[in-house]
Amino acid sequence: MFSQLSLWRPLNIDEVLLNIEGGGNCHPFFYNLEYVLITGKNYIGNDLKANGDITFKTINPELNKENDWVLIEATEVEIQEAVEKAQSAFQSYRQISDEERATFLRTIATKIEELGPELIQVYIAESGLTEARAKVELKRTLFQLRSFADHICTDDWRRTSIDLGENDRKPTPKPDLRKTHIPLGPVVVFGSSNFPFAYSTAGGDTASALAAGCPVLVKSHPMHAGTGELVASAIIEAVKECKMPDGVFSNLNSSGIEVGKFLVQSKGVKAVGFTGSIQGGRAIFDLANKRPEPIPVFAEMGSVNPVIISELSLTTEKDKWVNQYSSSITNGSGQFCTNPGLILGIGSDELDSFSQSLAEEMDKLASTCMLHPQIKSKYDKAKAVVEDSPVTEKISQGNRHLKDNYAEQTIMRVKGKDFLANTQLHHEVFGPFSIVVSCKNLDELNLILEELGGQLTGTIIMKEVEFDLFKPTLEILKQKAGRIIFNGVPTGVEVCASMNHGGPFPATTDSRFTAVGVDAIYRWLRPICFQNFPDTLLPSELLNK
Amino acid sequence: MFSQLSLWRPLNIDEVLLNIEGGGNCHPFFYNLEYVLITGKNYIGNDLKANGDITFKTINPELNKENDWVLIEATEVEIQEAVEKAQSAFQSYRQISDEERATFLRTIATKIEELGPELIQVYIAESGLTEARAKVELKRTLFQLRSFADHICTDDWRRTSIDLGENDRKPTPKPDLRKTHIPLGPVVVFGSSNFPFAYSTAGGDTASALAAGCPVLVKSHPMHAGTGELVASAIIEAVKECKMPDGVFSNLNSSGIEVGKFLVQSKGVKAVGFTGSIQGGRAIFDLANKRPEPIPVFAEMGSVNPVIISELSLTTEKDKWVNQYSSSITNGSGQFCTNPGLILGIGSDELDSFSQSLAEEMDKLASTCMLHPQIKSKYDKAKAVVEDSPVTEKISQGNRHLKDNYAEQTIMRVKGKDFLANTQLHHEVFGPFSIVVSCKNLDELNLILEELGGQLTGTIIMKEVEFDLFKPTLEILKQKAGRIIFNGVPTGVEVCASMNHGGPFPATTDSRFTAVGVDAIYRWLRPICFQNFPDTLLPSELLNK
Repeated sequence: MFSQLSLWRPLNIDEVLLNIEGGGNCHPFFYNLEYVLITGKNYIGNDLKANGDITFKTINPELNKENDWVLIEATEVEIQEAVEKAQSAFQSYRQISDEERATFLRTIATKIEELGPELIQVYIAESGLTEARAKVELKRTLFQLRSFADHICTDDWRRTSIDLGENDRKPTPKPDLRKTHIPLGPVVVFGSSNFPFAYSTAGGDTASALAAGCPVLVKSHPMHAGTGELVASAIIEAVKECKMPDGVFSNLNSSGIEVGKFLVQSKGVKAVGFTGSIQGGRAIFDLANKRPEPIPVFAEMGSVNPVIISELSLTTEKDKWVNQYSSSITNGSGQFCTNPGLILGIGSDELDSFSQSLAEEMDKLASTCMLHPQIKSKYDKAKAVVEDSPVTEKISQGNRHLKDNYAEQTIMRVKGKDFLANTQLHHEVFGPFSIVVSCKNLDELNLILEELGGQLTGTIIMKEVEFDLFKPTLEILKQKAGRIIFNGVPTGVEVCASMNHGGPFPATTDSRFTAVGVDAIYRWLRPICFQNFPDTLLPSELLNK
Repeated sequence: MFSQLSLWRPLNIDEVLLNIEGGGNCHPFFYNLEYVLITGKNYIGNDLKANGDITFKTINPELNKENDWVLIEATEVEIQEAVEKAQSAFQSYRQISDEERATFLRTIATKIEELGPELIQVYIAESGLTEARAKVELKRTLFQLRSFADHICTDDWRRTSIDLGENDRKPTPKPDLRKTHIPLGPVVVFGSSNFPFAYSTAGGDTASALAAGCPVLVKSHPMHAGTGELVASAIIEAVKECKMPDGVFSNLNSSGIEVGKFLVQSKGVKAVGFTGSIQGGRAIFDLANKRPEPIPVFAEMGSVNPVIISELSLTTEKDKWVNQYSSSITNGSGQFCTNPGLILGIGSDELDSFSQSLAEEMDKLASTCMLHPQIKSKYDKAKAVVEDSPVTEKISQGNRHLKDNYAEQTIMRVKGKDFLANTQLHHEVFGPFSIVVSCKNLDELNLILEELGGQLTGTIIMKEVEFDLFKPTLEILKQKAGRIIFNGVPTGVEVCASMNHGGPFPATTDSRFTAVGVDAIYRWLRPICFQNFPDTLLPSELLNK
């Protein structure tokens, strides 16, 4: 056992010069922040450990300098211990009542709330996101935890089925068969870079897995590992208060890919949740499938989220859509997996006017800070691929005096046939960026949609008289995307039972599941059938009602 | 287009010398069979085609000679055409109403029934199975088709969810969100060797995929390709009668692995169903995951189906269990994926007596024909691995005068510690074979269970006073198996909603789904969410009730 090395320390004033407002604007603001507690260690179940010698720091992208706290990467021995603890914890955790797991999830939410303003401050210092965004995302995260708690207290969330036996059936008696769903086992969660709360340490993957009865091993995201540790400490507090088994949750720091690779290949791990890039998700998917015992991976890897806008919508409501889309593209520096990266319309003066106004509106907005120098650098590289193409035209002016790590919001224009011929333009550019594609006609527009990969979302903006015209377009969208938005924007993923946050590859690695909403729990459950069992040995949900 | 080359021809009398009874007994029987129609061609959608030059014949294992009909392997051009037809058919098939698809499934069942006794005869000639078995399996197959037809006519089989919008919600309005499930696209089905009807051409995978709205491409099993063609012809009849789109079903002959490999790698294929060996299933799973766009594979690959039998059950009901297990192990020549291949008990005089009686009872039964010389040869090899081990003891006498392709029903005995130390004894031996493991104590028995891979089934035989004793054993079984049988045998997979025919790897490649029962349909469906959609554009199941 290690003694807990406390790193309570004052933050200097530069570190708290952060932007707080939502949307595209940002203003400096001083926090009343004095102390922050980050040990930099790994939670191996309830124990804080740090035997490794690989250390790293997070970066405050707003200040473009490292944060003070030092994180220590988990060693293979520590990871192995965490996996073994998870396996051991699973033996009791899977048998704990739904009510007790629900209380555990609600206690996690309470403990995170109790972390108070320090948590928000560290989040901001590690992400460059605003305080308003931090608070909204925190609220969402707490709501998710409580949603799953509520869900596992509803009737028949285990999707049970009972077929009574028939002893008199000829030629053979019909057996009594009863089916329920049970947890898969320890789940590894790879948090995302862009949602330090909602898709990370205590995010949707963790909440759904814990709700299902699966222990969770979080591979903490290196860009916000301090935030991760604070949230993890709240979960561990809840583990102790609710007397959950030691090992039901672990939080492992990692500076690169090694910790994740080791986790995914560990025999005791039974499933993986991932939110991030196509490259990263695919690597983990491949690794998991090559195991002697392959395990399911749900990787949500983003998409370009095509938007189709009709001529009549442009004629009658241009300003409305310029407003909504300039905001949707730039919000959170465009760092959303549902960011609209591709706007398709039929070439016309109206489309040109829309593109021009959209670019102008975006130029008016102040630039905003990206999550990390690496994210900014990737954004610039991906943007340059489109900008450097001879077939594209940049119509936004951009900002020539950007602060370090601030993103230039950008609108590009391209002709449909050129877009079709240049597949390097089809990829996601993660940031405040969108391409307007001017199509020769609806056939070309539909063909472009057909050529795109799987998408988290597809949006169609049209007036009622155009419904018939766009019927084929809508049918293509249905086959491409997990969610279709009518006359709206794709950003803003509502957390509710009817949400689907998923979609065909490469949006996710398994389109049959969602990452958001209570149905996300079914990623971590499997059916089991009991044949001719006496009541005393049946799970309670399978007894006759 | 090809003219249909009719191969109506008389069968000679030797060919109809077949066994018909169920269970272990077999008696020669003469059919009133004169003609059989098998063209040997591939159904590329509704068209019969055979441009290839690779031909093969099926084998009558009972007679140990080739059947007369010649099958022509599908060429790459033909496979590609079938995939393209399936993609094209999908565009209309996915939009056909549930009622129409249900009628299509019911018509398939009727058309198969109308094939009459010829179908049964070809089945027997290609499998060596009895007429009684053929008829039972056919009945089951028809029942499955009709079950899925009924299922897609029930309320809310698409698992819909509706969250009404709230325009007044602060700070942002809540969107109207509605979720349903839609088909994935063309599905490739690899039929099994051991169920020429129920898990093949029109078996559970095909029925569930067609019910979901997915076109099906069957990679016909080479061992019963004649049966496959006949069943396929009935499906094509139903396609035409119900005016389903050409390409909604194709049947492709293959003599080896090439046709399957080509299919799994085809861009237009969106999912795979497989029933067969671990080696075959894993190869297909790996191939599907390596695609640029990976696709889900549900491979059901069998298991050893461990049975735990308590001391008290042996003391009080030995004869009952000897009877039930001698029958369960030998039925269908033991060629079931749920065949009990491993019987675990605590070492005692009772266990020895049980093993001895089981072996004697099995020795009394007449040997039966296996499906194919290759299956027989694999059985002998797998059996030899166990027999040749210095730690095992053969306690059945066996039959020294076996006919060609007949299986020697075999009971082996081994000590728990020796079983643990020799993992080559842990694998499935596909045939009328079981190993009785004599454990030192319950801890050793539990340890053996822990060491086994994932299983389709686990069985526990015990008396009420022993429930507490076997609680840990039952908990291990729950984590290992997809179905747990209490005081019974694992063979006999009831087709109903509460059945789970699946389980952790290597029993299947995805334990979250079942291959049997109406829930098998969810392997081929994915959620889709509609946001703020007007009623006129919503699927009917998402309208307000």
